[in-house]
Amino acid sequence: MSESPVPTATNVRPIQWHGDLLRLLDQRVLPHAQEYVDCHDADEVADAIRAMVVRGAPAIGISAAWGIVLAARAVAGSADWRERLEPAFATLAESRPTAVNLFWALDRMRAAVVDAADIDDLVREAEAYMAEDLAANHSIGRHGAALIAANSGVYTHCNTGSLATAGYGTALGVVRHAWGDHRLREVFAGETRPWLQGARLTAWELMADDIPVQLCCDAAAGQLLASGRVHWVVVGADRITANGDTANKIGTYNLAVLARHHGVRFMVAAHTSTIDPATASGDSIHIEERPPEEVTTLRGLAIAPAGCRAINPAFDITPASLIDALVTERGVIETPDAKAIAAHLA
Amino acid sequence: MSESPVPTATNVRPIQWHGDLLRLLDQRVLPHAQEYVDCHDADEVADAIRAMVVRGAPAIGISAAWGIVLAARAVAGSADWRERLEPAFATLAESRPTAVNLFWALDRMRAAVVDAADIDDLVREAEAYMAEDLAANHSIGRHGAALIAANSGVYTHCNTGSLATAGYGTALGVVRHAWGDHRLREVFAGETRPWLQGARLTAWELMADDIPVQLCCDAAAGQLLASGRVHWVVVGADRITANGDTANKIGTYNLAVLARHHGVRFMVAAHTSTIDPATASGDSIHIEERPPEEVTTLRGLAIAPAGCRAINPAFDITPASLIDALVTERGVIETPDAKAIAAHLA
Repeated sequence: MSESPVPTATNVRPIQWHGDLLRLLDQRVLPHAQEYVDCHDADEVADAIRAMVVRGAPAIGISAAWGIVLAARAVAGSADWRERLEPAFATLAESRPTAVNLFWALDRMRAAVVDAADIDDLVREAEAYMAEDLAANHSIGRHGAALIAANSGVYTHCNTGSLATAGYGTALGVVRHAWGDHRLREVFAGETRPWLQGARLTAWELMADDIPVQLCCDAAAGQLLASGRVHWVVVGADRITANGDTANKIGTYNLAVLARHHGVRFMVAAHTSTIDPATASGDSIHIEERPPEEVTTLRGLAIAPAGCRAINPAFDITPASLIDALVTERGVIETPDAKAIAAHLA
Repeated sequence: MSESPVPTATNVRPIQWHGDLLRLLDQRVLPHAQEYVDCHDADEVADAIRAMVVRGAPAIGISAAWGIVLAARAVAGSADWRERLEPAFATLAESRPTAVNLFWALDRMRAAVVDAADIDDLVREAEAYMAEDLAANHSIGRHGAALIAANSGVYTHCNTGSLATAGYGTALGVVRHAWGDHRLREVFAGETRPWLQGARLTAWELMADDIPVQLCCDAAAGQLLASGRVHWVVVGADRITANGDTANKIGTYNLAVLARHHGVRFMVAAHTSTIDPATASGDSIHIEERPPEEVTTLRGLAIAPAGCRAINPAFDITPASLIDALVTERGVIETPDAKAIAAHLA
């Protein structure tokens, strides 16, 4: 693969609506190349979500909303167009099992379908959804940054930035805001194996914004936290249950345990739509197991012996008891539990 | 790079003395290729250690011993041949800062130089050193395995096997022995970024011995330990200080903290020569910082944006308080501390 010039975060729009297709920035090949995948129907959007062309819970939700718009285009004009969207709702719902934003987005579009006079109403709904997500991320960033004392070090995991959302980011929005406030001495990004979202995406976003980032292997987090250079670990979430347990990218739970052991504070930053009040606790969350080849190969290169078995859980569950602050666009919940979360959502 | 047939652990001799050169299996290209680096003098041995052609504390010590033999060949016949070995001792001592076996091996060879009548005496000393290491590893394996209950799951990190020693391995010797005793239900190997010794070397060794291994990303360890499938984490050591603090491959400390959090037991398996009574505690150990390119690239492939900074500590320190058992060729020290270790070495 040729190494094209590194694009900058500011001119990248990872989710683009083009009237008759959804164009997605292919996050599998960043930062080496800036390529797009065009989706012409809901199946192609579901495939792109499944294949991780697009990733990050909010971005998945937004893409799924556009998938419904594409499905509606295909059946527009028929009398039973609303009913004929059901296969698209089903296909998109199955594309990633853990991302609750996906179901939330589909519920929102389902409600819009009921009220919509025509396809334009659905386009407006998807556009509004994106705009609201961006505005919410700025609020998350402001609330989260306010918790961080001056001269702090922060450590983040995976990618929760512009690439994972409609823009700015959730946990990375907190980092961006805190950096803008001159609160941060150092920013560390864990590389986030197996997909290396930290190395490929977060490092790229932060460098594009001139935020000096230091990459490290996930395995180096313990030594780093023991050194005293990190004051907050800030992560996103794929699903937060009613009691505050948080499903997020594999490796998040390691960091939560390490943070508690070292007296480092642990923040989860996410949109309220990531909270799933219908699921009582993390015990009920099915952990998606992804193909072993994601562990045994890297960009097509074998890094383990042929035929090597591997476990590859996509997510882990961090219990609420290890979370010092849950930050949403509405504000901060310190030491989250079921009662505080219910009050926050009320 | 062409993918040659996978060699088997049983017919591989990673450290070979050929009378006028030391042939080292190039562990940087395993398991994709079986290539050797020939060292003709002490400088080339030091280069090979520094470049991680050979790695693993015991294997580094053995290679350094042969480096002295090569140096002695070069000055043989001169009246002051003993004095003329000093540059070789100095160069080899500087090749890796953390591996105490290296200094131990050099001290042993220095003593042999005093007594040696000729080069043949030094060759015999290096051969004896290798034979003793192999025998010690079988003892370590037996002592360690005896601690593991039937039907257990074990998790190991990095590579501490035949490739890291004169043969059989230390922590991996424990796994081999426990497997032979039918004590193990499952064996997990952490991939061990950035060098992927777990994926490339440990998985290969275990597969070659028909021990079913499941590879996992370092970041997945927490989720795995929380699942209850792992009963012992078994690791090696690069240096153990007088009080039991253990310097080992980056990521070891993460595992120790995670093991304690989950009530999983944590075993360090190492030859007594790895214990450094002259260093009081881990606080005094300088952590080797290796080049950032080891994190930002993989087999020449960029996995982060060009110019990305990275921290890359080679080792971390696990405090003795997190170690449930220290196993050497002499036996087992449970909950190791300065007093118990001094008694063990007495």
